[in-house]
Amino acid sequence: MNTDRLIRTDVVVIGAGPVGLYQAFQLGLQELAVHVVDGLAHAGGQCAELYPHKPIYDLPGIPVCSGEELTHRLLRQLEPLRVPLHLGQIVTTLRRLAAEDGMSASPRFRLETDGGLAFACDAIVIAAGVGAFLPRKVPVPGLEAWEGRQVHYHDVPPETWVGQRIVVMGGTEAAARLALRLADHGSSDVTLLHRSDRFALDEALDAELQSAIGAGWIRLCLGQPVQALASDDGRLEALEIATADDRRLSLPLDLLMPRLGLNPRLGPIAAWGLALERKHLVVDTEGFRTSEPGIHAVGDVNTYPGKRKLIVCGFHEATLAAFAIAQWLRPHERVVLEYTTTSTRLQRLLGVDQSEAGNKRIGTGA
Amino acid sequence: MNTDRLIRTDVVVIGAGPVGLYQAFQLGLQELAVHVVDGLAHAGGQCAELYPHKPIYDLPGIPVCSGEELTHRLLRQLEPLRVPLHLGQIVTTLRRLAAEDGMSASPRFRLETDGGLAFACDAIVIAAGVGAFLPRKVPVPGLEAWEGRQVHYHDVPPETWVGQRIVVMGGTEAAARLALRLADHGSSDVTLLHRSDRFALDEALDAELQSAIGAGWIRLCLGQPVQALASDDGRLEALEIATADDRRLSLPLDLLMPRLGLNPRLGPIAAWGLALERKHLVVDTEGFRTSEPGIHAVGDVNTYPGKRKLIVCGFHEATLAAFAIAQWLRPHERVVLEYTTTSTRLQRLLGVDQSEAGNKRIGTGA
Repeated sequence: MNTDRLIRTDVVVIGAGPVGLYQAFQLGLQELAVHVVDGLAHAGGQCAELYPHKPIYDLPGIPVCSGEELTHRLLRQLEPLRVPLHLGQIVTTLRRLAAEDGMSASPRFRLETDGGLAFACDAIVIAAGVGAFLPRKVPVPGLEAWEGRQVHYHDVPPETWVGQRIVVMGGTEAAARLALRLADHGSSDVTLLHRSDRFALDEALDAELQSAIGAGWIRLCLGQPVQALASDDGRLEALEIATADDRRLSLPLDLLMPRLGLNPRLGPIAAWGLALERKHLVVDTEGFRTSEPGIHAVGDVNTYPGKRKLIVCGFHEATLAAFAIAQWLRPHERVVLEYTTTSTRLQRLLGVDQSEAGNKRIGTGA
Repeated sequence: MNTDRLIRTDVVVIGAGPVGLYQAFQLGLQELAVHVVDGLAHAGGQCAELYPHKPIYDLPGIPVCSGEELTHRLLRQLEPLRVPLHLGQIVTTLRRLAAEDGMSASPRFRLETDGGLAFACDAIVIAAGVGAFLPRKVPVPGLEAWEGRQVHYHDVPPETWVGQRIVVMGGTEAAARLALRLADHGSSDVTLLHRSDRFALDEALDAELQSAIGAGWIRLCLGQPVQALASDDGRLEALEIATADDRRLSLPLDLLMPRLGLNPRLGPIAAWGLALERKHLVVDTEGFRTSEPGIHAVGDVNTYPGKRKLIVCGFHEATLAAFAIAQWLRPHERVVLEYTTTSTRLQRLLGVDQSEAGNKRIGTGA
């Protein structure tokens, strides 16, 4: 594994959705060093990925707020604590480290990402929601052999595709935008393969796509799922497709770029040996600890009696997890509750100008 | 007990602090009929009573917000659900009702307040924080005998005090405001009894008080605690006070109006036979149920393993309590989770114009 950087920290939070961001905030208030990693290229998780502009009405004290706005608010709240976010990084491996005497070591864990980051840390909070959003794969046996060479689920630099015969596959916004970008950059041979001529796009993008198809810059190929692959000497040569009217079509290509949408997957986390119940991490309700000491789980990824997948519950879980982790990492100290309203320590951490913190108390005592 | 009104409802929430208000919101989303009662004259509980203007920094998604602002935000969020708030009502008695066959009845509980309200309900949520804010009593044995006749801890109508010799006791804002109001209304004989000539007041009020004392409208009497009472024929005649320089002083009076501040007290709740641990109600973490079926407790009043007295935790507790109560009152129905982002039922309840609810989903699927 390529690990360009090794980052030593107290805690790694996996997931930069609302609950992951608030988790980082609560750990920061405990004065723990925190890093956050997320597979998406932006913070906000499901909220920002699946419904960025849809209003949420049940966040306490926020009568209405979009997923995008909530993300901005949480990022702003987190700002003074200067927690590094590592985006576009899917966690691939987790290793427990053992000291020479076989006892628990410090750092206790090593985490690695697909982007070449490595973390050494003492505690982990999994706030991965429904999992990492991974590209939906084309369901044709054998295709994976060409991944990274002729089949690209992620964007690749222009030198890879200039002058090539490219098939973009899917009816998503990502598929439409990619086909338009390729055509725009002068790729003369761009085919958009989709099962219908209707796309789930907003009006402006749909119009742009239809006009590019009308002008012949993008060839639209209507086809049912790929049925077979044609290859020669280890090279993918063509897709065999059943058309909508049930004929068979051979679509020659140099590159296939599927954009079928993102699928949430628990991914490698499911293989870490943590106790699961219906694909959710089993935790206690005292510190939201998984079955592995030092690994906690908060938000939609966990389960416990009474669990409801609501953001407001994740915020509570993150708060108690932060207290539990602080206590675990400082076994000889009693972690006490302090209020941001009155604690000069917390206000200093949050960069509050304490001369203006409204510390004048309205008298209620005699 | 004087009970002018009997109100039949599904649930009564005791406490209109932030957690009580959000509890009402969550119960409303479950389409349960809810009433809220609180001993204070305004919503907001501790937040509004003890630190209305002090900023809170750790509410998720609200980087900074005063207790007063939080209360306003929660009231605004609750508005579409039209939940009646009964303020200035301290709950005095709780009675479990039994059906004729000795089995549980519906309504299951009867609650009464000191203001003459009575509720018949099937579930109760205690969100009473540190308890009702009750007036701090004057620590002199025997004084309670004159309460409601010559000793008034709450404001009384002018016909009670006009033309009387009145002693207002205490250094609080409430004491100062009462003394000024009495003097203003032409009571010629107002004494303010306090242990020092310094008051914990804001500048403007302090100036007003000092000038009323200077002008002789209010007589200031500096005294240590009351040491004895002088009475004649069942009538309170005078307070015997030790002065600051250790002389003894007899202060004649018709009425005593102590304003020594408010003291939070769990009050009658402590006598309801619910399981307690260090004066907190023991609950489970699945539905925040007390030891009595149908009675739940959320926020600072409860305890469970890992409990931290934070508003964010109370919001979660209120949410799960609402689900548990809905399930309990509808045993033959499965209470499912719905999201305000997508549920037309919840949006209708919240008065959302559904044509504008941003229901256009940004396509992520193929």
